[in-house]
Amino acid sequence: MYYRMIAQCAQMLKNLESWLDKAEADAAAKKFDVGVLMAGRLAPDMKPFIYQVQSACDYVKAPAAWLSGQTPPRHEDAEQTIDEVRARIRKTVDFVESVKEDQYAGASERKIGMSWAPAGKVLGGGDYLLQMTIPNTFFHVAMAYAVLRHNGVDIGKMDFLGPVNWIDA
Amino acid sequence: MYYRMIAQCAQMLKNLESWLDKAEADAAAKKFDVGVLMAGRLAPDMKPFIYQVQSACDYVKAPAAWLSGQTPPRHEDAEQTIDEVRARIRKTVDFVESVKEDQYAGASERKIGMSWAPAGKVLGGGDYLLQMTIPNTFFHVAMAYAVLRHNGVDIGKMDFLGPVNWIDA
Repeated sequence: MYYRMIAQCAQMLKNLESWLDKAEADAAAKKFDVGVLMAGRLAPDMKPFIYQVQSACDYVKAPAAWLSGQTPPRHEDAEQTIDEVRARIRKTVDFVESVKEDQYAGASERKIGMSWAPAGKVLGGGDYLLQMTIPNTFFHVAMAYAVLRHNGVDIGKMDFLGPVNWIDA
Repeated sequence: MYYRMIAQCAQMLKNLESWLDKAEADAAAKKFDVGVLMAGRLAPDMKPFIYQVQSACDYVKAPAAWLSGQTPPRHEDAEQTIDEVRARIRKTVDFVESVKEDQYAGASERKIGMSWAPAGKVLGGGDYLLQMTIPNTFFHVAMAYAVLRHNGVDIGKMDFLGPVNWIDA
């Protein structure tokens, strides 16, 4: 379930990548710089779109590493353009997809630290997945969605959900 | 994992319930009707706050029922006031918490239909949890958050995350 859940989080990043194409097309059609959307915020004291993407990426990269006994690759938060945002998503997804299912054996028994955790405190593997990875990933992906949606980009909930594995009844 | 994941989704509804208190306090302090926030939207062609809550509730109620072999209780979408929104969350959480862990035995083998699925198509239990329940629950909870945050309610990411089970390192 660790493997499948983290794969679903990576899928959310791929969905986000597809919204970038719509953002770019919208900016071109309305003749404004797509950088306006990249710097867009929902509130003045909230982080901009690019930060939301960087943060979403890190909340998917980290569990793929820590829960498989690896140290996460370092990705600098230096993105400024839409193509750099695409590249950040791509290298994150590539790393996550490099981790095979059997590497998550023992994930439940791992203890995971967070830089902002209370002193001397960590999370067990299951809680790290359920209370940290999933809520944070979806939070930042959804805030990125909200910035674009609020600014008129033509995305809808099916773009948020992405592919669905329908099977015969 | 079904049990724990659906419990985490129910926790997100409880977190949302706590934002309502902040929304109410904010409206009182700034002397406006909190109903303005209940009807708030991120975009003119997007559903309002109350709908986001109703939808989040239904995306948590349904898997608790279908994945445990039950029919979901019917909850009319009739809420108009903040107290009615609180009651909708409360009855949803009460139902979800009435389902015990062992009732999810066999959840993986269940096939779940959606009213808007392609003709003759359903989802397997795992995909229903990962591709439908979690993304939709977090989508609607996050959109509710975004409406409040965009309108100046003093909520932050720790309000979104809710309780975290820190343990000793």
